[in-house]
Amino acid sequence: MIKSAIVGASGYSGAEVFRILSGHPKVELTAITSTSRQGSSISELYPNTTSSSDMVFSSYSPTLASGNDVIFLALPHGQAMSIVPELMAAGDAKIIDLSGDFRLPGSVYESWYKKTHSAPNIIDSAVNGLSELNYDALLKARLVANPGCYPTSIILAIAPLVVAKVISEPIVATCLSGVSGAGRAATDLTHFCRAENNVSAYKVGGTHQHIPEIEQGLSSLAQETLKIVFTPQLGPFTRGIYSNIAASLKKETSIKEIDELYRTFYDDKPFVKILDQGVFPELKGVSGTNFCHVGVAIDERTNTITAISALDNLVKGAAGQAIQNMNIIFGLDETTGLTTMGSMP
Amino acid sequence: MIKSAIVGASGYSGAEVFRILSGHPKVELTAITSTSRQGSSISELYPNTTSSSDMVFSSYSPTLASGNDVIFLALPHGQAMSIVPELMAAGDAKIIDLSGDFRLPGSVYESWYKKTHSAPNIIDSAVNGLSELNYDALLKARLVANPGCYPTSIILAIAPLVVAKVISEPIVATCLSGVSGAGRAATDLTHFCRAENNVSAYKVGGTHQHIPEIEQGLSSLAQETLKIVFTPQLGPFTRGIYSNIAASLKKETSIKEIDELYRTFYDDKPFVKILDQGVFPELKGVSGTNFCHVGVAIDERTNTITAISALDNLVKGAAGQAIQNMNIIFGLDETTGLTTMGSMP
Amino acid sequence: MIKSAIVGASGYSGAEVFRILSGHPKVELTAITSTSRQGSSISELYPNTTSSSDMVFSSYSPTLASGNDVIFLALPHGQAMSIVPELMAAGDAKIIDLSGDFRLPGSVYESWYKKTHSAPNIIDSAVNGLSELNYDALLKARLVANPGCYPTSIILAIAPLVVAKVISEPIVATCLSGVSGAGRAATDLTHFCRAENNVSAYKVGGTHQHIPEIEQGLSSLAQETLKIVFTPQLGPFTRGIYSNIAASLKKETSIKEIDELYRTFYDDKPFVKILDQGVFPELKGVSGTNFCHVGVAIDERTNTITAISALDNLVKGAAGQAIQNMNIIFGLDETTGLTTMGSMP
Amino acid sequence: MIKSAIVGASGYSGAEVFRILSGHPKVELTAITSTSRQGSSISELYPNTTSSSDMVFSSYSPTLASGNDVIFLALPHGQAMSIVPELMAAGDAKIIDLSGDFRLPGSVYESWYKKTHSAPNIIDSAVNGLSELNYDALLKARLVANPGCYPTSIILAIAPLVVAKVISEPIVATCLSGVSGAGRAATDLTHFCRAENNVSAYKVGGTHQHIPEIEQGLSSLAQETLKIVFTPQLGPFTRGIYSNIAASLKKETSIKEIDELYRTFYDDKPFVKILDQGVFPELKGVSGTNFCHVGVAIDERTNTITAISALDNLVKGAAGQAIQNMNIIFGLDETTGLTTMGSMP
Repeated sequence: MIKSAIVGASGYSGAEVFRILSGHPKVELTAITSTSRQGSSISELYPNTTSSSDMVFSSYSPTLASGNDVIFLALPHGQAMSIVPELMAAGDAKIIDLSGDFRLPGSVYESWYKKTHSAPNIIDSAVNGLSELNYDALLKARLVANPGCYPTSIILAIAPLVVAKVISEPIVATCLSGVSGAGRAATDLTHFCRAENNVSAYKVGGTHQHIPEIEQGLSSLAQETLKIVFTPQLGPFTRGIYSNIAASLKKETSIKEIDELYRTFYDDKPFVKILDQGVFPELKGVSGTNFCHVGVAIDERTNTITAISALDNLVKGAAGQAIQNMNIIFGLDETTGLTTMGSMP
Repeated sequence: MIKSAIVGASGYSGAEVFRILSGHPKVELTAITSTSRQGSSISELYPNTTSSSDMVFSSYSPTLASGNDVIFLALPHGQAMSIVPELMAAGDAKIIDLSGDFRLPGSVYESWYKKTHSAPNIIDSAVNGLSELNYDALLKARLVANPGCYPTSIILAIAPLVVAKVISEPIVATCLSGVSGAGRAATDLTHFCRAENNVSAYKVGGTHQHIPEIEQGLSSLAQETLKIVFTPQLGPFTRGIYSNIAASLKKETSIKEIDELYRTFYDDKPFVKILDQGVFPELKGVSGTNFCHVGVAIDERTNTITAISALDNLVKGAAGQAIQNMNIIFGLDETTGLTTMGSMP
Repeated sequence: MIKSAIVGASGYSGAEVFRILSGHPKVELTAITSTSRQGSSISELYPNTTSSSDMVFSSYSPTLASGNDVIFLALPHGQAMSIVPELMAAGDAKIIDLSGDFRLPGSVYESWYKKTHSAPNIIDSAVNGLSELNYDALLKARLVANPGCYPTSIILAIAPLVVAKVISEPIVATCLSGVSGAGRAATDLTHFCRAENNVSAYKVGGTHQHIPEIEQGLSSLAQETLKIVFTPQLGPFTRGIYSNIAASLKKETSIKEIDELYRTFYDDKPFVKILDQGVFPELKGVSGTNFCHVGVAIDERTNTITAISALDNLVKGAAGQAIQNMNIIFGLDETTGLTTMGSMP
Repeated sequence: MIKSAIVGASGYSGAEVFRILSGHPKVELTAITSTSRQGSSISELYPNTTSSSDMVFSSYSPTLASGNDVIFLALPHGQAMSIVPELMAAGDAKIIDLSGDFRLPGSVYESWYKKTHSAPNIIDSAVNGLSELNYDALLKARLVANPGCYPTSIILAIAPLVVAKVISEPIVATCLSGVSGAGRAATDLTHFCRAENNVSAYKVGGTHQHIPEIEQGLSSLAQETLKIVFTPQLGPFTRGIYSNIAASLKKETSIKEIDELYRTFYDDKPFVKILDQGVFPELKGVSGTNFCHVGVAIDERTNTITAISALDNLVKGAAGQAIQNMNIIFGLDETTGLTTMGSMP
């Protein structure tokens, strides 16, 4: 059994790692930590765990790195960088960081996150955790920078187009996130009475901190610099990222060619599902699962292509992908512990 | 592997049997039937199955009973009784009927369901499928009458009180059902724009067809005739039954005594969870699972007791309990295939 | 024009007074106060007001009582009692208090609200603001204790039965409140991801502070002491109280007699609507309005009666009733400014 | 008083005309027609009207045109064209058609709506009802082609940019509609259990019938042919259109210049509200009202502009704008009967 610990398990992402690991046949969970909830049971905070677990939040210690094979960090941005160095010094555990701390070069990080990076020398050693695009590097990763939910959603939706160089800028990504994307903190915007029956855009005008991560991913695929026009929106649902990406086609291309492009690109990728032509994703198709559904259409009138992806922000956009990466690192089948079918209705 | 088929798999209950069986380690699903959807894939109707299944709805035939070990009937009320006799004649498969057709004596059925019963002679052989109360009978059942969602919810909530004879009539049950309880049929009342932010009572004044089933269950436990004052309500959520049952205490009783009564009664029942004193169920604690959470409080001022239960109407209230019953019949651990933790948020 | 001010206008009830007064043809609003939001515009907090108002929150001062004809107090429980004496001393403005501070005798208040009452000598002079039951007293009120949402909902639902003495205890009230009933404060329970698709009971076992207010109202109508078995529940909707009240009938009574009882009782009450026999309230029928819809059924099998009421907790349960009371006090038609039809879908 | 009738008042748009006219001080409603509901009360279908109206659906007759000053047609697409000729022959009533039947040249209509147009010779006489852009023509209109919800939302959002010729194609519009946009018909997609917590794109790839209407409007403003890349999406809310429109700027432009452009363009338009810089619309700000809120941002990195608009699809996107047009035609203040503040929470 793979021994694991979750640092920051009281937040939504950490609790989702907990939920999935609880059903993982090859993993033993030794500790879940929380600063604010230390000493209380996870079931007090998450009643869904009531019948299955009596695990109690403990305090964090770097010694977790010597007693475990893998540590999931599910901390707010800016906190992981302060403990990763000591964890790496204290033991051999692989570290999968769900925050944004190790996803970007230090200077880029500091510019977008408005924070000084305290461990810039470690960033280079972190492997990008977008599983479908970095399989080989993940096999030997010590530290994984698990990607953001929006980057995963957008990059998976158009990677085949970018690699094949069939689209031209501007690439316009208009995305909807569920309220869980705003985290467990209770705020005016996450209040039920404000969020239900509401939609609101935020960080409009190219200011969201996921932009450099998206552009880094796309540019790496394209082998040239690409920019994204990105508007995030908050929608009245709990889970999911629904991304709509439109761009002009460089030349006339048939939907058949595009369809083949996608199917070839994702041929051996179990978690990316290319829908039949004329069928488009819906959140209910992926909620609670590690799948990303993708549908594509061409508008001949405007010579544009629209790619749409749907995924669960807490699973493929966070905890599920982290566990997929753990599976890869430890030589398990990528899908181990991640095959539960979603619920519907 | 236990070979199984689902008759009527396009409705919500049948599709939920499909979902749970898809993750059941001891069951092979050989056929899913649907009259209206015959020939089309289940993933067209239920996008959550897209990534996991390409099973196609077939037509019904009584020969299913000879090629399978168990058949789940998830048909509208009134249809199961017309095929159960031929299924029992055609083979040895156990039959688990999720409809109301075999839950009540024929005359009672006809009076409440306003339908003639076409197979009244078989009713007596059906075993009531409220798993926690009928374990021994289920071990040797050929035909199971899986109970209704409201009866499961109400009976589990107060069974210990009824057996111990600590409450007196009137027993007032005020219950909320999610919209999935109204089935997959699109109607004015299940329209999103009508159902969201709405609550509406229906069949007020003791007219719901689950009443005789509830009273039969309670009277059997009490060894005397008990009646229920029952109001069902439709609430703005997809899954769940939330039941509030209030009754007078025959004599002063402490919450400690009541708590012990419940814990003793459900001591070895893995799917009924008695919450800590002062904690009460919420739907999010059971959604997507086969659990029933129960909380109880005493109001000394009025000398009354209030028992509250929460369960998922499609799981413990239908498909999950059906599979729990299958597990019992086939000698498996009761919880096999039913241990997936619920999601939250 | 009636000059008015709202003290505590940043909370949901105060903002709802603001919304309704903005469309009231006979009222001029001179000030809205907020301690936490002082100096900022109401439209920053409530975007629905953006197009219609640029009013700014000011600080509270007792001098409001001399420059206005009426002052609405929409403060948290415990704060009104500390300023009502100085307001009454500073001017002649009528005071309509939406909190619980002046609804109960001092000793009862202290026992249920767990707070010392700082102005017990004023309580007696406060007129209960359940408009339909206290019209004459309201005509000459100086200080109105506007009733709670649950009390309004339950008392209106069964007042005719209580006055006619046709029901016997226990009277079981099982009620659902929308999330706005928990106020604007962002908490774990009001977080969208916790509240949507959820139901949870709270203060089970006769501990809710509205109980003495309900019992005071019912006992006053019955001219004898009545008790209530009350369970409040939080449901996944923004606005509304949906109350289900069941009790045994003292003797056999026809639904026709009951129907006449209700219609006679509420004959000249414009905001209480008795639905046709066999029709029951739904929240969508009253949301956004000052109406209370009531439906009643008799269950002959159990000799019980069930009365169901629906109202908007922020309107008839708070701000709307406060304005209805203002209308009465100032000799306007009771419905002035309160006739806007609700929206549907 | 202006005498009015609503043809097709049982659908959502017709019922919304009914709701708003019920509070309109200058309009008397003489008839509401419905083929399917003829003879039944509107309150059976719309419980929000229960307390305010006992109006009954009648049958349609062309003679409505002689007894009324204005007739609102709220029929499914394809039905208005079959009765407009006879209505125009039967009397002098102004006709405001909420369907798509008279919005497009006949050949364009037939190509996008896949229907033969039965009254193509009347189309030219119809005045486009996007009130803010066609005020003068509306003053003397006999027949108004009230615009679609998406066209209203998109055109209002970018009209100033198009007139000033500051943006270049592709113009990418990604829009979310509430479920009420799909109409009152109960379908798989409008079922609560499918729609809640879900998002799904439809008619992806430039196939929605509103496209020619959007392009006609934009091209008319630009005085040159413009095309739109348009993806409609269905979101889990009842009311609202939330539109995000992105395009490249032809040259570097400051947000201050853009802001002035918008404020000048909409200076005297009471229902279009340009939000402060850095503030963006949310649906809760406009729900239930005739307002359209617009926010704009520039992304200097990509030299693009993003305009976002929010409106209520049933009000400014249908019934409200129809009544605004009626006000204009009959010389009333544009805002008469349309000033009710939205609700929040």
